[in-house]
Amino acid sequence: MARLVMKFGGTSVANIERIRNVARHVKREVEAGHQVAVVVSAMAGKTNELVGWCREASALHDAREYDAVVASGEQVTAGLLAIVLQDMGIWARSWQGWQIPILTDGAHGAARITGADGSRIIQHFEERNEVAVVTGFQGIHQPTNRIATLGRGGSDTSAVALAAAIHADRCDIYTDVDGVYTTDPRIVPQARRLDRVSFEEMLEMASLGAKVLQVRSVELAMTHNVKTFVRSSFDDPADPKPGTLICDEEDIVEQQIVTGIAYSKDEAQITLRRVADKPGVAAAIFVPLADANINVDMIIQVVSDDTTTTDITFTVPAADYERAKTILEKARGEINYATLQGATDVVKVSAIGVGMRSHAGVAAKAFKALADKGINIRAITTSEIKFSVLIDAAYTELAVRTLHSLYGLDKA
Amino acid sequence: MARLVMKFGGTSVANIERIRNVARHVKREVEAGHQVAVVVSAMAGKTNELVGWCREASALHDAREYDAVVASGEQVTAGLLAIVLQDMGIWARSWQGWQIPILTDGAHGAARITGADGSRIIQHFEERNEVAVVTGFQGIHQPTNRIATLGRGGSDTSAVALAAAIHADRCDIYTDVDGVYTTDPRIVPQARRLDRVSFEEMLEMASLGAKVLQVRSVELAMTHNVKTFVRSSFDDPADPKPGTLICDEEDIVEQQIVTGIAYSKDEAQITLRRVADKPGVAAAIFVPLADANINVDMIIQVVSDDTTTTDITFTVPAADYERAKTILEKARGEINYATLQGATDVVKVSAIGVGMRSHAGVAAKAFKALADKGINIRAITTSEIKFSVLIDAAYTELAVRTLHSLYGLDKA
Repeated sequence: MARLVMKFGGTSVANIERIRNVARHVKREVEAGHQVAVVVSAMAGKTNELVGWCREASALHDAREYDAVVASGEQVTAGLLAIVLQDMGIWARSWQGWQIPILTDGAHGAARITGADGSRIIQHFEERNEVAVVTGFQGIHQPTNRIATLGRGGSDTSAVALAAAIHADRCDIYTDVDGVYTTDPRIVPQARRLDRVSFEEMLEMASLGAKVLQVRSVELAMTHNVKTFVRSSFDDPADPKPGTLICDEEDIVEQQIVTGIAYSKDEAQITLRRVADKPGVAAAIFVPLADANINVDMIIQVVSDDTTTTDITFTVPAADYERAKTILEKARGEINYATLQGATDVVKVSAIGVGMRSHAGVAAKAFKALADKGINIRAITTSEIKFSVLIDAAYTELAVRTLHSLYGLDKA
Repeated sequence: MARLVMKFGGTSVANIERIRNVARHVKREVEAGHQVAVVVSAMAGKTNELVGWCREASALHDAREYDAVVASGEQVTAGLLAIVLQDMGIWARSWQGWQIPILTDGAHGAARITGADGSRIIQHFEERNEVAVVTGFQGIHQPTNRIATLGRGGSDTSAVALAAAIHADRCDIYTDVDGVYTTDPRIVPQARRLDRVSFEEMLEMASLGAKVLQVRSVELAMTHNVKTFVRSSFDDPADPKPGTLICDEEDIVEQQIVTGIAYSKDEAQITLRRVADKPGVAAAIFVPLADANINVDMIIQVVSDDTTTTDITFTVPAADYERAKTILEKARGEINYATLQGATDVVKVSAIGVGMRSHAGVAAKAFKALADKGINIRAITTSEIKFSVLIDAAYTELAVRTLHSLYGLDKA
């Protein structure tokens, strides 16, 4: 007997027929003798409808009211799944975030879970092995007693938080892919599904645009050491595939040096030429950007032709590119640069692997391989377990394929 | 300064444009200096959609899960109206039944309100004259902590219960008619809107099929002496009509003998001929019907041709007619009757007025007037403030018009 959390997203519960399919997955686990809590999203399209109404009601809507409206989507799915499970002869009941309760901070619309009380759900497990069907994406803020939502994709985080609260043996995230891949299979047909990936690697992959899991849910899984599987809800409920286990580094026996290659197209590059090379100039550039909530990622500073000035290159999210340029043009007097150059047709390609910690020269190999293919590297960043290169977008596929082969990730 | 509850039904909040119109009504009252709580139903059609999903999920669905699903409709409307009000510069917030709380019993799907705590809403009135937007149709059952709905039309009851809880000066029920009429204006064009009608009269009218207000809401208004207006949400928000006040009998100065004529088509008649006239026979007939939850309304017993048997005629709701016949046929041996006759093409026409209490011969006048028109009366019942006659359905309009004129209710 194990205790587990199963999470299903919006496309998996888009109508009653799909909800019945979800119930079959749940039934399999119940019949295997497990105690099961299910976390559900709203039916696909419902959240968009609700958000649309809020926007129509007012362009500047109160986030607390937005939350009250939008949280209703999961409430509907949870009740319906409980009904379908009962119809299959399985004890089940729905739980809304405030009933458990799942507690959040007061950042309505993008709240963080601050706690969850699993005691009543566990009590119902023990008393009659009742399946708990829990509304994802939401909790309650105290002492205001108002519903708060976690922001898009928040149901993954709900599932992991619930798994921690009920001391679940594992948390299965059912999605429309059957696991985490070494890279995007649309670009590299040789991409392999990983059996296991460490929390740290998954965090880097998630934040780099391999959008399988919400970053926050991986952080939470790492903190509470929740064994989390990514698996497909479209598998045959009677014979599902295992998916990918996201787990502690120590639980991975044969650790690769590089586990995966990710890429992110939402990048823009800004270069300031001939900036006066004196103390405080970096602050003059980056403080106004930070004040405007613009995340600066890669930063490189190189000495210019003359020795009194320097060139500074950095990246910002593509969505903030125009705003960043405006801010820097306004601050030109203070920063004192000659020209501002920018590019949006750039992409960041990254290699991730905890094995890098103990292997030198991993990145250097990549620089050479990319150069051999004629790919120019605009910027580089490295961390303990990943390195990233900024290149022209036109070379995205070539670069990803090159690194995927280089580190031995191609399918046998 | 007054304190008031305003209630709007599903057609009044069917989309954002109509919700904006509701907000204009609310704004008028706020600008007049009043403290306002608004009770809203789900958008028209939404409750049916949610109910449809529950039925699709299982024919025999758990009423507690049904409630969790269906209650989401009002949650959406309450949040949206709060957003629209804020957009108009009015302090407002939504309250769900469980947040107030409005307490109910455990009869999920058709729960009764057992209490409501108005203290926090009053506190918000006092602190900053904030409009409370409250989800109708629902409350919370304790100690189970689960949402319970009141059954169709329950938002009227929510509004009255809230009015009692916050000690409101009045409760305005906005609907698609502009008040309570002396009879159905589709049948009698001379029908007049009543300025005032007593709780007792309204109860009889509501239960007799003049479906303006849910019966339970009128009972509650009477118990707590809540002055309740029925008025139109389609009036110009800047210049609304007063509607009909439902109030204590003592607040009506010029009391008419008869206030209104109601009719109900949902009736069926059953006659048992030559029933043995001995003690216990009434029980033999009516106990099995009561056990099957069939409401028997009018009952007449007349002595038959011979003196050892009697004929018994009574009415049941048309929807229960076939079921009632089956039960009586099964019990034939015990009841010992000669024949069972039935009719569904019958209608009950009633005259209602608290003035009947002090005036004799009110009903007798009606029997004569109907006889003069050649209308045969199949059964009669009378109570303190109303009398009803059962007639052939073909004579409905003629009978209603005849009584409406007879008691001086036609428009001048």
